[in-house]
Amino acid sequence: MYLTHLECPKCGRTHDANQVQNLCQCGAPLLARYDLEKIKSTVKKEDLTGRAKSLWRYREFLPVQKDENIVTLGEGCTPLLRADTLGRTLGLSQLYIKDEGLNPTGTFKARGAAVGVSRAKELGIETVAMPTAGNAGGAWSAYTARAGLRSVVVMPVDAPDMAKKETFLNGARTYLVQGLISDAGKIVGRGVKRYGWFDASTLKEPYRIEGKKTMGLEIAEQFHWDVPDVILYPAGGGVGLIGIWKALEEMAAIGWISGKRPRMVAVQAEGCSPLVKAFREGRQESEFHQNAQTLAGGIRVPKALGDFLVLEAIYKSGGAAIDVSDAEILEALRLTARSEGMFICPEGAATIAAIQKMKAASLVDKDERILLLNTGTGLKYPETVEIDLPVLGAADDIVL
Amino acid sequence: MYLTHLECPKCGRTHDANQVQNLCQCGAPLLARYDLEKIKSTVKKEDLTGRAKSLWRYREFLPVQKDENIVTLGEGCTPLLRADTLGRTLGLSQLYIKDEGLNPTGTFKARGAAVGVSRAKELGIETVAMPTAGNAGGAWSAYTARAGLRSVVVMPVDAPDMAKKETFLNGARTYLVQGLISDAGKIVGRGVKRYGWFDASTLKEPYRIEGKKTMGLEIAEQFHWDVPDVILYPAGGGVGLIGIWKALEEMAAIGWISGKRPRMVAVQAEGCSPLVKAFREGRQESEFHQNAQTLAGGIRVPKALGDFLVLEAIYKSGGAAIDVSDAEILEALRLTARSEGMFICPEGAATIAAIQKMKAASLVDKDERILLLNTGTGLKYPETVEIDLPVLGAADDIVL
Repeated sequence: MYLTHLECPKCGRTHDANQVQNLCQCGAPLLARYDLEKIKSTVKKEDLTGRAKSLWRYREFLPVQKDENIVTLGEGCTPLLRADTLGRTLGLSQLYIKDEGLNPTGTFKARGAAVGVSRAKELGIETVAMPTAGNAGGAWSAYTARAGLRSVVVMPVDAPDMAKKETFLNGARTYLVQGLISDAGKIVGRGVKRYGWFDASTLKEPYRIEGKKTMGLEIAEQFHWDVPDVILYPAGGGVGLIGIWKALEEMAAIGWISGKRPRMVAVQAEGCSPLVKAFREGRQESEFHQNAQTLAGGIRVPKALGDFLVLEAIYKSGGAAIDVSDAEILEALRLTARSEGMFICPEGAATIAAIQKMKAASLVDKDERILLLNTGTGLKYPETVEIDLPVLGAADDIVL
Repeated sequence: MYLTHLECPKCGRTHDANQVQNLCQCGAPLLARYDLEKIKSTVKKEDLTGRAKSLWRYREFLPVQKDENIVTLGEGCTPLLRADTLGRTLGLSQLYIKDEGLNPTGTFKARGAAVGVSRAKELGIETVAMPTAGNAGGAWSAYTARAGLRSVVVMPVDAPDMAKKETFLNGARTYLVQGLISDAGKIVGRGVKRYGWFDASTLKEPYRIEGKKTMGLEIAEQFHWDVPDVILYPAGGGVGLIGIWKALEEMAAIGWISGKRPRMVAVQAEGCSPLVKAFREGRQESEFHQNAQTLAGGIRVPKALGDFLVLEAIYKSGGAAIDVSDAEILEALRLTARSEGMFICPEGAATIAAIQKMKAASLVDKDERILLLNTGTGLKYPETVEIDLPVLGAADDIVL
């Protein structure tokens, strides 16, 4: 194992990684640190070629000590697809979409859950509790079921039906709350105190970010270690963006990629855009977004615990934070399906709406290599598509 | 290219693969034939190691001539997962599930569509028409959209909403019919005559089977070229089973696997079991199943064009055809989610119900290596899960 300790990115304190940990005393999330020199001397990027097609191919960069503790459903190694038709429409010659919808449970949340649950199992945790906007609950309930752990999940009453169903089906003790994910988080917090469950809330749990980090490793490998110029990511809690950035730093530290970094762009919905507001005002942290509302439930996070890490990555990389309307999201979703045959989730569609805005504002050049993260399959969001199809009798003919 | 011609498995006639083809004059589907000697002398199975993680890694076994015609969304290379918890419950020590839900569009239909549409594009076809129970429509509409081809899809009015939505969203001209997939097929047939569309109905189109064949290649590669003892497959049209069998024959012909074959088991629903009836009666072909009914829409096919090929594979391999009830399917679906965290489709769940019956009837030994095909994600079937979850106020506590 190459994991050495946990570190607070705010106050610098270090913490024992062999103990169950949540936040630092200072209230900030903890980041896993590795012996990068040892990784550098043991594994070459060429060694990856013959490895398994899952995020566990990046074994050395992950916090699980013993292979027997790995809980897998085949997560990671999602396709990197050129989107040439869409690119032509948008006036971009090198547009790519990484389709995280091809993960178990249909979203990138599977990455965080696979690594988080594996490590929880390794550390002897028996019951995992978490609030969710929906998809993390689906993912964590799946991996805890597979691991034989118990789980408690609380989600907003207006979370997508699909997420409620899969969480329940996977055997999680599932509750709805009349409120937002922040309210769900408080209920979980009280339950954790009362019953001694492990609090697996986003970033209160230090290892899901390591799972999401593998998106960054994959991006580098799929681009043949020459990373793209711009990466757009739909940011709710922002863990994916923090993870990708962390992966880029770790790979640069061991010489797998050059110092050049993609400009990191956080995409939010107009109805819930705390990071965009903070970015426009040049701040290091965001403020709670009152009355958060958007159809893209995965990015309806009024205030993220890791906001300062997201903003740091944006500033350091010369990136941006962009917001788009729900109407723009729906239009982008339809355009992507018609153009590329990809039924993406509203959060993914937000990145497509955002790149259009960035192009219009000359924030990207037409020939730059641009990567959009589609964080999940549209199959989890049937409510985004309305249909009214012609019905034929068996003896009828199609008439054009 | 290693494709040499198309061959009728019924009357033996050969057909030019460089022309657009549907059925043989004798009414039977056509199979693609390759120069296997040439494949044998050019590629070794070890060569696959470094190749792309998609079904196109088996390039030599596929009918597309030029790489530029490949239409891909990252299909294939789905995970092979051990199901140890489920296996313990069922009394089976080596139970595996191949999860085809991790394909684009959420089902194994993506394999057939990727190869079928790529070849259609290569042959200059402009409009593709097809009947579907639902999922093939979702897949073919996605790949035709990505290829820039037009598509016409007809499906039963009671097909799953999700399939209707994705087919429509992908830009296919989509019609519903008050009837079964067989009625949809007749409407397509009349439209094909009238408008000159290409008829891409199951097995009237010779190349989707080549895409589905890659399941067989993957199974062999994932089992390190030592194929399992038994394979259970939910058979509607049965193309997947025919494809897997064809792959096994091709691999054996070039010495990639030994002569030993898995016992091939076709699983159907009690409400639509023409192959099971034919198998019980020892026949070579099936009869039309009147009033076909099952919640597993993908296997609601009253009479398959390739029935004789499915039955041939079953007989040659010493396999079987098994039917299960809808109630057994739903119970198996729930059991799999609780045990393994996998939300599978009803068709996949049918294989789990079937292996329980086979175990009870001593048709399998407890230590045999058994592979179940889950053909799609449960996310496409929200109607299989009913929920009634507790709703909390924001100030409420969870009370155990």
